[in-house]
Amino acid sequence: MIIDCHGHYTTAPAAHQRFRDAQIAGLKDPAAAPAAPGSISDDEIRETIETNQLKLQKQRGTDLTIFSPRASAMGHHVGNEAVSAAWARANNDLIKRVVDLYPESFAGVCQLPQSPGVPIAHSVRELERCVRDLGFVGCNLNPDPSGGHWNSPPLTDRHWYPFYEKMVELGVPAMVHVSASCNPNFHATGAHYINADTTAFMQFIEADLFRDFPSLKCGIPHGGGAVPYHWGRYRGLADMLKRPPLAEHVMKNVFFDTCVYHQAGIDLLLRVIDVDNILFGSEMIGAVRGIDPQTGFHFDDTKRYVDASALSAADKSRIFATNARRVFPRLDAMLKAQGR
Amino acid sequence: MIIDCHGHYTTAPAAHQRFRDAQIAGLKDPAAAPAAPGSISDDEIRETIETNQLKLQKQRGTDLTIFSPRASAMGHHVGNEAVSAAWARANNDLIKRVVDLYPESFAGVCQLPQSPGVPIAHSVRELERCVRDLGFVGCNLNPDPSGGHWNSPPLTDRHWYPFYEKMVELGVPAMVHVSASCNPNFHATGAHYINADTTAFMQFIEADLFRDFPSLKCGIPHGGGAVPYHWGRYRGLADMLKRPPLAEHVMKNVFFDTCVYHQAGIDLLLRVIDVDNILFGSEMIGAVRGIDPQTGFHFDDTKRYVDASALSAADKSRIFATNARRVFPRLDAMLKAQGR
Repeated sequence: MIIDCHGHYTTAPAAHQRFRDAQIAGLKDPAAAPAAPGSISDDEIRETIETNQLKLQKQRGTDLTIFSPRASAMGHHVGNEAVSAAWARANNDLIKRVVDLYPESFAGVCQLPQSPGVPIAHSVRELERCVRDLGFVGCNLNPDPSGGHWNSPPLTDRHWYPFYEKMVELGVPAMVHVSASCNPNFHATGAHYINADTTAFMQFIEADLFRDFPSLKCGIPHGGGAVPYHWGRYRGLADMLKRPPLAEHVMKNVFFDTCVYHQAGIDLLLRVIDVDNILFGSEMIGAVRGIDPQTGFHFDDTKRYVDASALSAADKSRIFATNARRVFPRLDAMLKAQGR
Repeated sequence: MIIDCHGHYTTAPAAHQRFRDAQIAGLKDPAAAPAAPGSISDDEIRETIETNQLKLQKQRGTDLTIFSPRASAMGHHVGNEAVSAAWARANNDLIKRVVDLYPESFAGVCQLPQSPGVPIAHSVRELERCVRDLGFVGCNLNPDPSGGHWNSPPLTDRHWYPFYEKMVELGVPAMVHVSASCNPNFHATGAHYINADTTAFMQFIEADLFRDFPSLKCGIPHGGGAVPYHWGRYRGLADMLKRPPLAEHVMKNVFFDTCVYHQAGIDLLLRVIDVDNILFGSEMIGAVRGIDPQTGFHFDDTKRYVDASALSAADKSRIFATNARRVFPRLDAMLKAQGR
């Protein structure tokens, strides 16, 4: 079995984007009635999924995608708390419909209704709704709801603790994932995403978050940002800062995905990071959609790189499935209920 | 011959830091006379260099360090333009004294007097002084003088062009290097440095800076941030953004150093980046000062990793010296004048 831990509904029907556009247009006219989510038929959902994510699952030989709303469209910096709450809810409801239509091919992960300056505690209710009512197995947590201005407290600040308490209570992990950048210095998928991954990991080194929440689980996407490439630097910095070794200080709680789009990068990841800390992911259909002229295959067909690596079959199966079932216990329960 | 392209005077005599402390204390009292650089004897400089950088050069078998003021202490976000100008000048004068004392072991690279919101054109005069009067061979350019708030225009914006014009005229490259972070989200050496490297590279992809300045040369330190690890992503993004292939669009002008503190990271760098785009560097004495328990050697003894790589002797000598002499033509001229 092959579980892709990192997929987004980047191909949602046009009515969904029209709702977002109406929301944004409404920001200019506070007296206007709030926009309402568009009407989307099951057939429209089937069309967008079957010609895209489901087709690629079959082509590439993966079985199930842990599926969340389009990350770059979360846009937590747009509008206010009410706008963000309505947008998150509509996105999550749409993910739920995908999962209901294809319960063996997708598991839901929610977008949170974050807004700059709004306590993260306000996101707890939507997390509970998604996990308890919609059956989702995790969430995407944005460490920078400002979209590139980085004016929230670090992820290890007590500001975030009420949310972690709820995550632990519900037994769901978070993938640390920023959204679009409104800072012209940072290209979203080429800089902001990767920087956020690197930043989060270093925050974890500096603090004692996982002493306070020993069972908290955080995924860092895009292969852990710059971290595996600079693994010596991070081991050395932990030592200089008199932190415990990374294996016990951070790596009981943190997981990197395989969204690294070339063989050499995946080989490095597998060489330096313990296999138990790696989750298969492709980020498809997402950041990079083209075909690599050097290989003739899609850049984001990351299964090929893992397949071609020197890992044993047993280790590959941990990356492809076992680790994800451990990190996402609600996914594991769901799969067991399906007899898988 | 082995040239280390990335070293900082992190061990400057105490009087130098006392000057900085007095500068910072003076910020609270605008009526006070500006602080003056401390008195430092040649013997004090010899002591701090011979027991540190020069000792490590000998131990590790390197010949010359391209040497600049301590990057984390540039502190462009502290004070105002006048404070930054005086601090940069004092730092550069100190580097000049090191070079004069050890002209075969060090070549100077200058800190610039940047300040948030101040046009970069104001840095041109100090660059000219350092190159023409002090004989420096390059400069360190801070893409984020705010120290982690990232509110300057991208490096490819015309804001920066007057400075690039002067660089080209003088025939000196810049190393893109941020300073300390005053944003609690970003640990300086563990996040801010690496993020800045990644960010700069993506800015170069998005724009046409090197079409406008075909002879401009920029070093991206710390092994290019996250870029080599995500080389497939960057090749794919260039393609998606309809930019030319990286080899012609960026890599005629951009160089990565070898400040990557473990063998696997260096092996990746050498595997994906053309050998002509790699400059040997160690960042010593700098970000990570400890000994790697896995090897028994200093993390930042990066020569060991290059030595242990599978590269041919000819390719190693390009990384160790030939490339640096090409990227720093004034260094090459200086070495030739020394008969080297």
